[in-house]
Amino acid sequence: MSSLVSRRDLDFQLFEWLEAGRLAGRAAFADHAPDTFAAAIDTATRLAERHFAPHNRKADLEEPRLENGRVVTVPEAKTALDAFAAAGFFAMEVPVDDGGMGLPHLVALACFGLFDAANIATASYPLLTIAAANLIERFGSHDQKQRYLPHLRAGRFFGTMALTEPQAGSSLGDVRTTATPAADGTWRLKGAKIFISGGEHELADNIVHLVLCRIAGAPAGPRGLSLMLVSRFAVGDDGALGQRNDVALAGLIHKMGWRGTTSTMLNFGEGDACVAEIVGAPGQGLAQMFQMMNEARIGVGLGAVMLGYAGYLQALAYAKGRPQGRPAEAKDATRPQVPIVEHADVRRMLLAQKAYVEGGLALCLYAGRLVDDARTHPDAEERARAHRLLDMLTPIVKAWPAEWCLEANKLAIQVHGGYGYTREYPVEQLYRDNRLNPIHEGTNGIQALDLLGRKAMLEDGRLLADLVAGIRATADAAAGSDALAGLAGPLAAAVDRLESATARVRTVLAAGRATAALANATPYLDMAGHVVVAWLWLDQALVAERGLAAATADDHDFYQGKLAACRWFFRWELPKAAHWASLVEDMDMTVLDTDPGWL
Amino acid sequence: MSSLVSRRDLDFQLFEWLEAGRLAGRAAFADHAPDTFAAAIDTATRLAERHFAPHNRKADLEEPRLENGRVVTVPEAKTALDAFAAAGFFAMEVPVDDGGMGLPHLVALACFGLFDAANIATASYPLLTIAAANLIERFGSHDQKQRYLPHLRAGRFFGTMALTEPQAGSSLGDVRTTATPAADGTWRLKGAKIFISGGEHELADNIVHLVLCRIAGAPAGPRGLSLMLVSRFAVGDDGALGQRNDVALAGLIHKMGWRGTTSTMLNFGEGDACVAEIVGAPGQGLAQMFQMMNEARIGVGLGAVMLGYAGYLQALAYAKGRPQGRPAEAKDATRPQVPIVEHADVRRMLLAQKAYVEGGLALCLYAGRLVDDARTHPDAEERARAHRLLDMLTPIVKAWPAEWCLEANKLAIQVHGGYGYTREYPVEQLYRDNRLNPIHEGTNGIQALDLLGRKAMLEDGRLLADLVAGIRATADAAAGSDALAGLAGPLAAAVDRLESATARVRTVLAAGRATAALANATPYLDMAGHVVVAWLWLDQALVAERGLAAATADDHDFYQGKLAACRWFFRWELPKAAHWASLVEDMDMTVLDTDPGWL
Repeated sequence: MSSLVSRRDLDFQLFEWLEAGRLAGRAAFADHAPDTFAAAIDTATRLAERHFAPHNRKADLEEPRLENGRVVTVPEAKTALDAFAAAGFFAMEVPVDDGGMGLPHLVALACFGLFDAANIATASYPLLTIAAANLIERFGSHDQKQRYLPHLRAGRFFGTMALTEPQAGSSLGDVRTTATPAADGTWRLKGAKIFISGGEHELADNIVHLVLCRIAGAPAGPRGLSLMLVSRFAVGDDGALGQRNDVALAGLIHKMGWRGTTSTMLNFGEGDACVAEIVGAPGQGLAQMFQMMNEARIGVGLGAVMLGYAGYLQALAYAKGRPQGRPAEAKDATRPQVPIVEHADVRRMLLAQKAYVEGGLALCLYAGRLVDDARTHPDAEERARAHRLLDMLTPIVKAWPAEWCLEANKLAIQVHGGYGYTREYPVEQLYRDNRLNPIHEGTNGIQALDLLGRKAMLEDGRLLADLVAGIRATADAAAGSDALAGLAGPLAAAVDRLESATARVRTVLAAGRATAALANATPYLDMAGHVVVAWLWLDQALVAERGLAAATADDHDFYQGKLAACRWFFRWELPKAAHWASLVEDMDMTVLDTDPGWL
Repeated sequence: MSSLVSRRDLDFQLFEWLEAGRLAGRAAFADHAPDTFAAAIDTATRLAERHFAPHNRKADLEEPRLENGRVVTVPEAKTALDAFAAAGFFAMEVPVDDGGMGLPHLVALACFGLFDAANIATASYPLLTIAAANLIERFGSHDQKQRYLPHLRAGRFFGTMALTEPQAGSSLGDVRTTATPAADGTWRLKGAKIFISGGEHELADNIVHLVLCRIAGAPAGPRGLSLMLVSRFAVGDDGALGQRNDVALAGLIHKMGWRGTTSTMLNFGEGDACVAEIVGAPGQGLAQMFQMMNEARIGVGLGAVMLGYAGYLQALAYAKGRPQGRPAEAKDATRPQVPIVEHADVRRMLLAQKAYVEGGLALCLYAGRLVDDARTHPDAEERARAHRLLDMLTPIVKAWPAEWCLEANKLAIQVHGGYGYTREYPVEQLYRDNRLNPIHEGTNGIQALDLLGRKAMLEDGRLLADLVAGIRATADAAAGSDALAGLAGPLAAAVDRLESATARVRTVLAAGRATAALANATPYLDMAGHVVVAWLWLDQALVAERGLAAATADDHDFYQGKLAACRWFFRWELPKAAHWASLVEDMDMTVLDTDPGWL
């Protein structure tokens, strides 16, 4: 059995619950059938197990380091990425006619998740490269697409997202890197970037940086930002690499986790001249980034899920194999010890992990399915609806797994006891790696502001209304179920609270009291996240209940596990949403009433 | 300002709230006065800042390693521990007449906390040494006290607690290390121990291991265990060191945090013969350990608090100094950025940390005060009552800070954003270090079993009744307060739920359904912990309210901070207890109804 994900669960979520097979019926995926989707996942599993997982710990222990001015990484990373490229995974979603695998986003996500679970640090290079390629494909010029895309899609070039600067993190509008026009139509860049993952290495022939900057004289703030492409080496029309560009490594950053990913400070234009090309129109830099953000944020959420998932499987295997202690009712010390999975408190920690990671996976895959529906659903209104739902869910898809699958990793350590705290076992690294996810790609606090201040208010609440309708439909379906009728009421009640809390936010915002609303943004996000995950759990459980009716013995256990985790989430987790809702409904002012000087 | 703790808060908790000054009036502390207590804290602060804090990161980066068969640690650790010894801190609680500092436990805890905050890995050596010395003082023979105690109290010898074996972690009754009698009245030990902190190093002249073992032929289980003293070197009556004992380092363990502490696997008696002396009576090993456990567990709780506290102070300083973004109501990008403490969600994270770490400190210091009252209160009934309360609170004192001050460390990273995830800032290490605390000295799951299955049931519920009476008294006092009357009701309601949940547990246990009760032990512990911390917050707030009446400007801010954090805890945290109570009251069976095969 793979230790990366439960394939039974992945297949269930993709094919039984989200009906991924139906996507093969759409024109965009006409080259595919359900079994070719499964084959792609098979290949990803094999590659992840053979090339990514084995050096996960080694890359953690032997961080990238500078040697004679070059960044040295463990050699296994290059072997793995070469294999990833050779198998075509840099072009998972590129149409078959253009030389890609032509997979739906949903299936591509499932594939990518296996690499996340195996080695998130090495997987981050293709993650960033695919994101950069998508940006160029969407907004780049014909010439840029010709010169860069084939190499990015082949994994010969890697990409970066160079946004953050020392004074401009969450506040990207404060970016200072400056572009000035050159006579030949290109630009000259000057500035310093920080936290640039994959900013310098020798894993690929070339690195293509997408740099957020301000054209000299552009207005202050977000609207003055443009996106520039800076290639480490000049690229000829034939793909040949020319002169090295003026991008200098200013330092490597050492992190708690993700140690296999080079994290760099980069200086653009500190020497002769840093040649840049504009991507899209001037002043559109941030807008363009935002248009690609839904997918980037699903990618972060999925990474958090898969780290949690890998930890859960480790903890489960450990708990089934580790003898310790005896049942409370039969403490006879002369009898053999029992596996710790028999202890109720250990089983609680396992069930909690299962509920978090399978719930988180459902959230990410549901969002992935929405991406496909927004792109390729035959019905225009369904496309629009999918897009609205996706916009609404994105902050939750990013933040909820980062919070709760990190919690799963904490529990995975706890199940291992003292062993889990040692570097002889993998769970401590998973926990360290996962701690990044609440921070990058917009901190969870930023996600909360996005959800409460923007998404829930957009189109006069229509995005939220779509979400609420979806949740109510599942609650209604559950009301008619034998095994799950008892969960319909609690879900309906929870979604009522989501609506009442949102109404309160709308009133407060309309009264111009934005700060009061923002002070309650995190409980709003927490509440919405738990309601949404409860919904997706119940939706899965309804499918599991049907499956149970005619299941084999193994499948019987699998479906029962789905029902048990769903029940656990409803009984142990969903009630927390009521507390968070009450904070928002009361528009609690405790935080704002606290003077910073009192801290 | 020290970055280890807020001295204003420490002084408030010790002298204004817990009235430590009054302890100086007791015969046991007759050599002291309130200002000598403060002087001890001053000295501890100076030593911790000068000798412990500076190598905290270095000891994390340069773990102890084997070189030519010897364990090498960073040299700064030895300098620090020598300074600690020279200042007399190994003998903080030893009576002045016996050459010690003669401090009450409460003040000794406050002193020790400063070393925890500065460098918990280096502080762990004296922590273990003091614990070992206390055990020998309590249970050792006259000869053992003569030969070992002066050297342990002087820091010339260090101590260890050698309990865990590969097959005996939480289930100590399964210890297999075996002692056989020798002709000279000593014993010969054979066995393997794991996770022995401080098991091998050259920081002290000698290491005294207290080893849990089974005398050959003793019954299986906990009642067959004895405690043996194994000295690395034979010790003559004059203190001179003789032959090396047969204790061999079998390996160093590499952990996620606490990297400066050697964590070892030790083999006893793999060569010639491991000479051991029995401490106390045969078969009393575990009972003796348990009698020392209250103090050891307060020590763990305090360590968790101080790591959280150090992180909070780092996050607070960062938030006040880091400009980023602008107020929601005035987003003009041409205006300077504001310090992030101005953003509501950042202030929320700071207030949460303050509530967790100051609440956790109150919990530990309150327990420390109970230790003193149990030992030295002039009234016998008060001594007995203090002992009962201490027994009741100990699992909470260990577990609550390990959970919530770890959460504080998580938030400290989050306040720092991407910087917090790097090793260039201290908060990531604090988070890694703190992750051990829910595991060692009895996992938090074990604490939950102890609270629900033992402490709350002892003496027909009298321990709980004492606690409940204390909480109600504070609620009653608050009811008559101007500023805090609104918190009296919620606290009284919460303690009602604690009682009703406990009643339900009692019924279920009486019906022989121990497993069902244990399946709800963690929510019971979580609930009890939050109720107790809310109580201690309100109790502090009542003192702060009085202080506010005649406060200077600085003090005004300090007292307002106490009131604000108290209010925050009541509004944002205490309501969680209702959910946990409902699980226990319902005696939820979701976990037990889940077959391990379904996971």
